[in-house]
Amino acid sequence: MPTTAKIVRFHKTGGAEVLQFDELPLPAPGQNEVRLRVKALGLNRADIMYRSGHYLETPILPSKSGYEASGIIEAVGHGVDSSWIGKTVSTVPGTFSLNEYGVYGEVAVVPFRSIAEYPSNLSYEEGASIWMQYLTSYGALIWLGQVSKGDFVLITAASSSVGVASIQLVKVQGGASIAVTRTAAKKARLLELGADHVIITDEEDLAGKVNEITNGKGARVSFDPIGGKMLELLAAAAAHKGLIVEYGALASEQTPYPLFTALAKSLTIRGYVVNELTQEKEFQDAKQYIFDHLASGAFKPLIDRTFRFDDIVEAHRYMEANNQVGKIVVTV
Amino acid sequence: MPTTAKIVRFHKTGGAEVLQFDELPLPAPGQNEVRLRVKALGLNRADIMYRSGHYLETPILPSKSGYEASGIIEAVGHGVDSSWIGKTVSTVPGTFSLNEYGVYGEVAVVPFRSIAEYPSNLSYEEGASIWMQYLTSYGALIWLGQVSKGDFVLITAASSSVGVASIQLVKVQGGASIAVTRTAAKKARLLELGADHVIITDEEDLAGKVNEITNGKGARVSFDPIGGKMLELLAAAAAHKGLIVEYGALASEQTPYPLFTALAKSLTIRGYVVNELTQEKEFQDAKQYIFDHLASGAFKPLIDRTFRFDDIVEAHRYMEANNQVGKIVVTV
Repeated sequence: MPTTAKIVRFHKTGGAEVLQFDELPLPAPGQNEVRLRVKALGLNRADIMYRSGHYLETPILPSKSGYEASGIIEAVGHGVDSSWIGKTVSTVPGTFSLNEYGVYGEVAVVPFRSIAEYPSNLSYEEGASIWMQYLTSYGALIWLGQVSKGDFVLITAASSSVGVASIQLVKVQGGASIAVTRTAAKKARLLELGADHVIITDEEDLAGKVNEITNGKGARVSFDPIGGKMLELLAAAAAHKGLIVEYGALASEQTPYPLFTALAKSLTIRGYVVNELTQEKEFQDAKQYIFDHLASGAFKPLIDRTFRFDDIVEAHRYMEANNQVGKIVVTV
Repeated sequence: MPTTAKIVRFHKTGGAEVLQFDELPLPAPGQNEVRLRVKALGLNRADIMYRSGHYLETPILPSKSGYEASGIIEAVGHGVDSSWIGKTVSTVPGTFSLNEYGVYGEVAVVPFRSIAEYPSNLSYEEGASIWMQYLTSYGALIWLGQVSKGDFVLITAASSSVGVASIQLVKVQGGASIAVTRTAAKKARLLELGADHVIITDEEDLAGKVNEITNGKGARVSFDPIGGKMLELLAAAAAHKGLIVEYGALASEQTPYPLFTALAKSLTIRGYVVNELTQEKEFQDAKQYIFDHLASGAFKPLIDRTFRFDDIVEAHRYMEANNQVGKIVVTV
């Protein structure tokens, strides 16, 4: 086994170009930690925000990065059973801080509690594309939203990996998904991916269209990483006693709170991050639910494009250009 | 019994002066209705908004008004047991539409479902000051907020009748109330009324002060009829996973949604009107809870000032001047 490994780090925050390959001594897993030989990395918008210095956590420089990897356990620290060595697992975001751990590298040390097995019908690329998208969606739509048969669920940024996972999850729950996308470019693809309805915000009146689709009822749950003016549109499209889950801030403008609509419809607007769910007792249920639906094929991680490890800077730029549908993966 | 009665109506929306006394034939209660001989009227901000044409319902002119009255049942319609005649009751807001019923008058016809008895230790003035304030507070703080021992509850517009009722309710539940008021003028009075803490927003930093009072935890529940910039202050003062219940729109400015704070703290912001609670099964529990605490003396409606029936226009103006602490009542 080599005694060093290539680890992606940044020594200052900024654009994709700050990511660099540092040849570092092979890290030993500490108490309750494991070391993975990384096979694939799943990119997340959080990685970009963290790299740019705009995330909930501020990087301590030089900083590692990355929440999602699949790979094979090659070493375990004290407190971890050595029978885990050789197993294929992936890492679960929301269970560690990027200030302490980061998975971008040929190897990654992570807490034992942060790994999970996944069904063997999945490739390494798919294995690196599970937990952020399905856990985020599960937390919002099942844990908070209790989506079930007959519910209309509005999904904005629908072609993101979380969006596509949410379309799959709503279908499994028996609800009807209404995918929201900005331009007509991705409409056919979203329908092909299982969206029950697609609304193009550049061309269509969101609330009017939702009203039509839902026969005047409105959307019981909306799931939105955008904010800004989108929130007022979602409130206008919401059902009486509807729930709007906000999980990001992609809009650059201020977000007005739709006070009169909220009063008239008794709306709940909930700020949400996936880390919440991983601290709750329902986390185990969520992992089992996701595992089972991956195994059955009801959930299928959608890979938009894979990049080679050497091209991780380009992979970041590709995500920033926002043309993907599904997950961007880096193979190691 | 006289064959006519003075009923307060407005023939156009506008300032307090549009309220006028119309001498009308004594109305007969219809199916499932009762007629009260009105003894006292409790004024609510909703009455003013409705009169001005700025309420959730638009008046059909000429329009009656008023949600809250106490009085004696003097006639019943079909479907109501005549043993109710002679009983002292008050009317429960949120159980009828102002477009169909209004209690400002020497008599008022209301649905049987909209009346409730109250403990005999209360005066007519107090009887007209029960349901709007305590039901509104119960719905937000117990039904939605499940306030219990050890909770810190932020109450804005604390000297309003709902504010004072909420201070009493938080005490009964074992929580600590933090009353928020704009100027120092009402501070001593709010402490005397049972507020555990008082913050003066013109002089003090709301979030900093709440941080100090709660030892860094923040307020688990906030209850606010103002909106506007207040919402950002409440978010900054909120605990992790805190709940902010918005129940009015007194601020004239736009209300920004505190997206980053909502994400960082997993905040829930809920638009709420009392009408919701009256349609739920918990409504009976709420009425019983309020009755019991009025009977025990734990709840005591606070009357700021009483006006004579002839002075109802002046009573409206007095409410608009915003100097009251507690309920404004008109005796009939």
